[in-house]
Amino acid sequence: MTSDSLIDLRSDTVTRPTPAMLEAMLQARVGDDVYEEDPTVRALEQEAADRFGLEAGLFCPSGTMTNQIAIKAHTEPLSEVICEQTSHIYLWEVGGIAFHSGASVALLPGNRGRLTAAQVEAAIRPVNVHYPTTSLISLENTHNRGGGSCYELAEIAAIAEIAQRHQIPLHLDGARVFNALVATGQDAREYGRLFDTISVCLSKGLGAPVGSVLLGSRAFIQKTKRIRKVMGGGMRQAGYLAAAGLYALHHHVERLADDHRRARQVGQTLAAQRYVAEVLPVETNLVIFRLQETMPAEQFLAHLEGHGIKASSFGPQMIRFVLHLDVDDAMLERLNAALAAL
Amino acid sequence: MTSDSLIDLRSDTVTRPTPAMLEAMLQARVGDDVYEEDPTVRALEQEAADRFGLEAGLFCPSGTMTNQIAIKAHTEPLSEVICEQTSHIYLWEVGGIAFHSGASVALLPGNRGRLTAAQVEAAIRPVNVHYPTTSLISLENTHNRGGGSCYELAEIAAIAEIAQRHQIPLHLDGARVFNALVATGQDAREYGRLFDTISVCLSKGLGAPVGSVLLGSRAFIQKTKRIRKVMGGGMRQAGYLAAAGLYALHHHVERLADDHRRARQVGQTLAAQRYVAEVLPVETNLVIFRLQETMPAEQFLAHLEGHGIKASSFGPQMIRFVLHLDVDDAMLERLNAALAAL
Amino acid sequence: MTSDSLIDLRSDTVTRPTPAMLEAMLQARVGDDVYEEDPTVRALEQEAADRFGLEAGLFCPSGTMTNQIAIKAHTEPLSEVICEQTSHIYLWEVGGIAFHSGASVALLPGNRGRLTAAQVEAAIRPVNVHYPTTSLISLENTHNRGGGSCYELAEIAAIAEIAQRHQIPLHLDGARVFNALVATGQDAREYGRLFDTISVCLSKGLGAPVGSVLLGSRAFIQKTKRIRKVMGGGMRQAGYLAAAGLYALHHHVERLADDHRRARQVGQTLAAQRYVAEVLPVETNLVIFRLQETMPAEQFLAHLEGHGIKASSFGPQMIRFVLHLDVDDAMLERLNAALAAL
Amino acid sequence: MTSDSLIDLRSDTVTRPTPAMLEAMLQARVGDDVYEEDPTVRALEQEAADRFGLEAGLFCPSGTMTNQIAIKAHTEPLSEVICEQTSHIYLWEVGGIAFHSGASVALLPGNRGRLTAAQVEAAIRPVNVHYPTTSLISLENTHNRGGGSCYELAEIAAIAEIAQRHQIPLHLDGARVFNALVATGQDAREYGRLFDTISVCLSKGLGAPVGSVLLGSRAFIQKTKRIRKVMGGGMRQAGYLAAAGLYALHHHVERLADDHRRARQVGQTLAAQRYVAEVLPVETNLVIFRLQETMPAEQFLAHLEGHGIKASSFGPQMIRFVLHLDVDDAMLERLNAALAAL
Repeated sequence: MTSDSLIDLRSDTVTRPTPAMLEAMLQARVGDDVYEEDPTVRALEQEAADRFGLEAGLFCPSGTMTNQIAIKAHTEPLSEVICEQTSHIYLWEVGGIAFHSGASVALLPGNRGRLTAAQVEAAIRPVNVHYPTTSLISLENTHNRGGGSCYELAEIAAIAEIAQRHQIPLHLDGARVFNALVATGQDAREYGRLFDTISVCLSKGLGAPVGSVLLGSRAFIQKTKRIRKVMGGGMRQAGYLAAAGLYALHHHVERLADDHRRARQVGQTLAAQRYVAEVLPVETNLVIFRLQETMPAEQFLAHLEGHGIKASSFGPQMIRFVLHLDVDDAMLERLNAALAAL
Repeated sequence: MTSDSLIDLRSDTVTRPTPAMLEAMLQARVGDDVYEEDPTVRALEQEAADRFGLEAGLFCPSGTMTNQIAIKAHTEPLSEVICEQTSHIYLWEVGGIAFHSGASVALLPGNRGRLTAAQVEAAIRPVNVHYPTTSLISLENTHNRGGGSCYELAEIAAIAEIAQRHQIPLHLDGARVFNALVATGQDAREYGRLFDTISVCLSKGLGAPVGSVLLGSRAFIQKTKRIRKVMGGGMRQAGYLAAAGLYALHHHVERLADDHRRARQVGQTLAAQRYVAEVLPVETNLVIFRLQETMPAEQFLAHLEGHGIKASSFGPQMIRFVLHLDVDDAMLERLNAALAAL
Repeated sequence: MTSDSLIDLRSDTVTRPTPAMLEAMLQARVGDDVYEEDPTVRALEQEAADRFGLEAGLFCPSGTMTNQIAIKAHTEPLSEVICEQTSHIYLWEVGGIAFHSGASVALLPGNRGRLTAAQVEAAIRPVNVHYPTTSLISLENTHNRGGGSCYELAEIAAIAEIAQRHQIPLHLDGARVFNALVATGQDAREYGRLFDTISVCLSKGLGAPVGSVLLGSRAFIQKTKRIRKVMGGGMRQAGYLAAAGLYALHHHVERLADDHRRARQVGQTLAAQRYVAEVLPVETNLVIFRLQETMPAEQFLAHLEGHGIKASSFGPQMIRFVLHLDVDDAMLERLNAALAAL
Repeated sequence: MTSDSLIDLRSDTVTRPTPAMLEAMLQARVGDDVYEEDPTVRALEQEAADRFGLEAGLFCPSGTMTNQIAIKAHTEPLSEVICEQTSHIYLWEVGGIAFHSGASVALLPGNRGRLTAAQVEAAIRPVNVHYPTTSLISLENTHNRGGGSCYELAEIAAIAEIAQRHQIPLHLDGARVFNALVATGQDAREYGRLFDTISVCLSKGLGAPVGSVLLGSRAFIQKTKRIRKVMGGGMRQAGYLAAAGLYALHHHVERLADDHRRARQVGQTLAAQRYVAEVLPVETNLVIFRLQETMPAEQFLAHLEGHGIKASSFGPQMIRFVLHLDVDDAMLERLNAALAAL
């Protein structure tokens, strides 16, 4: 089995640029972006902002950086961020909310990662000398730990209404927001109206090698530039990376529907296996399932490895499969066969 | 109604020194404690440490400071503290864990504030570049939000065993640890064997006007002195306050049993009222209860206020009564009468 | 030699309350200051504020806390504090500016600790993505490392004008501000007009056992209460300490002139000794001098110790004497004799 | 004048990849570097480490990130970093030492940015409850503000000896360390023996579009991975950037001597102009000079702009020219002519 034929389901971050994307990178016009002179970076930032009807964008080397910059810019020490208890910003970003922002967290249990407006409102801290002040509400859509679950727009709107009433900014960790938009048919510009800031990842489903964009008002993005600088995200001729991101925005959004279709098919295969105890509803490109106690996760993963398939565990007996543009239908068949062969 | 006859059930922090305690303060020998030359402070620190079989103590102006100093000294940024989701260190100390220590929190749901060893072990973060490292486990006994609930020693021992196995320090927020010791008959020196550090409050049930003591090993306490200094807790002739603390240790510990007895009596009175939906089990000096929906908390508190009784709400429809040395049996009768009169 | 006759020149913090001050403490009316119900604390805060023509005050257990709270409240992370390079807030507060506030420092060389308006203006950072923003200017008067030197009011006014023009708040570390006022005859209310916030220490020259007061506008002081809480400075029946502070304000301000006179006399004695290389000009109660290379500091201090006199070194070959209310004229004579006997 | 012929002397960060470098980027083998599976990143990290005789490397999107990660990993809050008062880590990284690390700074005045061993030793803080502990010594070579000045190896060795004696780590901000090595003929592996960690920039003189590498022991670099992650520097298919860095290491080091030669020639031209008050000694690729008061900096820069030459001011009346691989001999002649024509 050659490495070409490896099926890597660990994450949608593992994709490699297509030849056309690479060509776009090679042709990029670049400049020193610390001087704000890289035309390709500026084009990417503006196009991403336009998609969501927001004013401005900030290109960064990772989604962790765009999220953490947004949190830092929205909050101050002695304040608190409301988020879901398994959200990426809390669970997977090395405790960055406390580290960078000195902010506390109010952790709410979601329905596959999704909060309700009632939950959010109840978590806003009253004024009291013993309490931090609530400074930010952050949602994640699609929700990673929730198995790629999507919010309904009405729930987001209800949360946004509460946020506005309490004058608390609302942030979206949109690492996989295009998956949500494609799966639900929601309008990106509606998101721009409801959220103050949105973090969009270019290197997950969209397939760019590196980068995320933080979107918001012009004044907000201006404020974030010093934060990006201190975090070390001020890059020079970053246009090579931005070119891949632009290409991805132009060519790799609609095709996410293929990943979703394949994910559903894998989900059905899994649901039919006796060694699988439960499959979370498949809404986008993530398939999260729980193995029966009789099937140790290590054994399951080793079986797949033997078939040239990589996946990763996601908690005790939990496995996550991620579909993406480096998994085609032929690979899907190989995967389904391997699952059935166990 | 004179102010003398006011019954203040808002907290056990509201007590005023008795004449004998005041006399002890007046007689105190003092020195400059920043130079470590205040004999009364040293005596208090040593006596408190000896009670728990620990080596050394650090006198501070508040329990928030002793807790936050302990957390700072045990942790470093990019690490995480395991605690109960309604614990004082998380909920009532202004987000100090993030503010002072840059540390994340793993928030566990307790049984009236008490964690199990299994919960604690499951919350220890595995090694992963995306995760903070677990640097501290903190318990609270008695547990304030849990209604003055007490840990069983066996559970503490099981948690301590896990902490030691993972080489994670174990801290006790012992703001009301003497209530726990008196109520359960547990041995303070057993606590000193199980916990690395203990924060003991002198101004709650013990009735001193100001102060808490942080207890631990000699090396640990040495390390905390710079932290107390930077937090502004380095006091000069603090012996006047320490004298009250010493007096409280000598004279106000056993009498906590009276507060517990009175709390049980109030709990029984409350349980018999139709406007009360639920009374948490009364184990020590706190009585937490939930009013029926038909009895608004504001109306209930206003009724008490009319009888010269102050209490405070503790969440929607929840009320907390705190018994302490400024509430005697005559007052208890007045309280019971006022509750019955509603 | 009994301990009563010890002459302690290490600091003006070592003083013990007089019998009259102790009596004032004993008589204090107190309450729970976390509930803002301690009448003596409120009286002290208001009286201190009134003296300087500022609106409100915040009582804290130390001058480090009042300074660090002020810095935290004025600044935010990614900003910078302008101060003198040997100022107490930078040099002696355990790096608290970085620790609590995440703020950078612009350190200027003063003339015996005093900055000029031109220096301050040149240190304000221009707008640049690589720079923190200047968020605070902090002066110290009298200046400890500068040997108790006093600012001229015109220089403070010139600095205040720059601060206002750039919309940067101006803080005074007034640990020994009463020494400055008594020595120069300046008007405290003039300070209240020029500074946004002033930290006043009650336990140095004024002789109270514990405490400092932070003064500012009502809105600013309101904002600081959560910061004091998180730092652990929320005390309960703190009125016992506040009573000493009030007594000190009423009885121990004018008498600072005696300390200044004695300091000048010691300065003259020192200037006449061959083993002294240089005595800094004596303006208030501090006497800082440099020993000849032929007189090791250890030997000098040991000689004094032999005469029942304690002092401390203040850098290589530098010695600081501090005059205060526990040093009377008889002790001064003993000191002068001991200095001449070397 | 076409944009191709623009001479940009503002920084050596403005360079664009050569065709050969771009080709190397296009051919790069990549993987997901968060999973440590990008072969080109690994190759770059190892080769950079080998050059300096250190064990391991960490690729990051900027030199600010490599410096700030190193500082964070070496220090902890309540400690202090010794550095030069105009060093890049203090002056140009947005106060990151306080922001990320909560650490204080001891700022020393250098000789064109270079510290002496005696200065460093005197700045180490003694043990005292009022002081932070000295946790890091950081040098910068060549020194930007010092005009590209180079340390003598003997001085570095003397400082390293002090650092080792006091068990304080020694870091090098080597943003332009290859300029220093080429200019002085010093051995890179000697640096690896003297410094604990070295930050090397690939996008300044070396001409890569993006990136720096932090070098140190294997254990140290392992520790930095979580810090890079929280700062948002964990990139995915970063091999495209690393390929440019590898190319630069192979092809763009020795040619720095050309930049140095050209810088010297510009320095001589400047020294001959009446409107120039002073030219700092030219040791590498930076030329810093002060204009006469009669020649406003704005007028001077506008004159150059009219000749298609960009440069930037560097303080009042100070100008910095930076030579780099996008400035060839023909451009140098144009520059000299423009300078003479004023």
